[in-house]
Amino acid sequence: MTGSGTDRTRPAVEGPAPVVILIEPQLAENIGMCARAMANFGLSEMRLVAPRDGWPSGGGLKKGATAAASGATHILANARLFASAAEAIADLNHVLATTARERGQMKRVMTPAEAMPGLAERIGGGERVGILFGRERIGLTNEEISLADAILTFPVNPAFASLNLAQAVLLAGYEWFSTTGGQPPFRETTLSPPARRETILSMFTYLEAELDICGFFPPGKKPVMTANLRDILHRLAMTEQEARTLRGVFKSLVEGPKKARLAARREEAGD
Amino acid sequence: MTGSGTDRTRPAVEGPAPVVILIEPQLAENIGMCARAMANFGLSEMRLVAPRDGWPSGGGLKKGATAAASGATHILANARLFASAAEAIADLNHVLATTARERGQMKRVMTPAEAMPGLAERIGGGERVGILFGRERIGLTNEEISLADAILTFPVNPAFASLNLAQAVLLAGYEWFSTTGGQPPFRETTLSPPARRETILSMFTYLEAELDICGFFPPGKKPVMTANLRDILHRLAMTEQEARTLRGVFKSLVEGPKKARLAARREEAGD
Repeated sequence: MTGSGTDRTRPAVEGPAPVVILIEPQLAENIGMCARAMANFGLSEMRLVAPRDGWPSGGGLKKGATAAASGATHILANARLFASAAEAIADLNHVLATTARERGQMKRVMTPAEAMPGLAERIGGGERVGILFGRERIGLTNEEISLADAILTFPVNPAFASLNLAQAVLLAGYEWFSTTGGQPPFRETTLSPPARRETILSMFTYLEAELDICGFFPPGKKPVMTANLRDILHRLAMTEQEARTLRGVFKSLVEGPKKARLAARREEAGD
Repeated sequence: MTGSGTDRTRPAVEGPAPVVILIEPQLAENIGMCARAMANFGLSEMRLVAPRDGWPSGGGLKKGATAAASGATHILANARLFASAAEAIADLNHVLATTARERGQMKRVMTPAEAMPGLAERIGGGERVGILFGRERIGLTNEEISLADAILTFPVNPAFASLNLAQAVLLAGYEWFSTTGGQPPFRETTLSPPARRETILSMFTYLEAELDICGFFPPGKKPVMTANLRDILHRLAMTEQEARTLRGVFKSLVEGPKKARLAARREEAGD
């Protein structure tokens, strides 16, 4: 969409992060898309519980998953396979279960933005944290949800709440990355410092003098019109370079016609 | 993943929101997935600039797009078709352009979380706002970006920055929805109010008395062990119902064996 923007020379974001546990994912392609979403946001540990179409034992790569992972193959290659949710979370200390539906369980319910600061604190304190994601169509069973400490749910349009598996992983990852200091890939280009006031004032003075020569100001209106014009241009909050560029623009408008007239005259004179 | 959770009885989130403008999307399926992501977060107006495989004139439905939209067909049916980015934004007041790469343009660069409060304010003030999303592989041209007021970019792992089109739309929609007060589909189940202190104290008293009878406390240790036990149980921050349930659990452990012994004796006696 936005060009890839991937810069292989920049270090990968690595470090302890929540484990993503996919319960009985039905399609290898969805597993791949989850891996891609994880890689986007610095999550690296994937666990699979009884994927419908199987998984190469001892970790490894699976065709449909690999294509959909768009290069996040390291995550697929290191994915670990388990027979049940309970086994997949046995070594973890804290577990969230994702669901879009109320289950009548007396658990704390959190959005990703609410949950991630707490998870980051636990992980910072050495805990191992995981997030359970259910089957594509039917989600987690109530029994699987009862294994978790709290529920993770997503703020979505109640009339259209269906997120696909990889999108749920994406939103969890996005909030994890944002919460833990993730930065956009670039910031404002600052080629030139903000303009000094004298550069701007000098531009104004030049412009207003030339407009005066051109007869731009009706009698008695110059003070008001000048103030309005300055208000408009001040709003640009220009850089030094931009103020100079704009002055050049005005100058060109003034001098260009003069030069053009001179050139035309010279041509007539047969120079 | 999380079961659908869609509740068609709840009103759709509607209202003025940013327009999503897709520039030369290559795959109808991606257009459908964008529509789905928009519906998830209450965005409803889609504009298409020269989709590679065409689009039914006068709005309408297109096969691959409809399947991928998972029911968000109203968005596809109302999508408007334009020949260029400039035409697609002509009636808007404020435009953001998404890109994952720095373009050397002197524009403000914002993440979705930074951008959405400003967009919400503009929209609240009656402005029409749009977000440009580029082609799947190569994004927006520099010329298209120069049409925008500011740049929208996503905080992603710099070593794996490639988001697909629908994921970019999803993240923008997610932040829009969160910023404008979007709520998760449900909150904690509160079947019972928090426990009254007397319920908890009465449970403690019962438990400690029974443990005393069982010889649980070594000589002289009762005060310390009782305090520890109360600390553990206080941490549960129980509801009234939970405190009663837990008392029932203790009682059953105490009385169950007695009842079982009585029943066994009766059976022996041939009752």
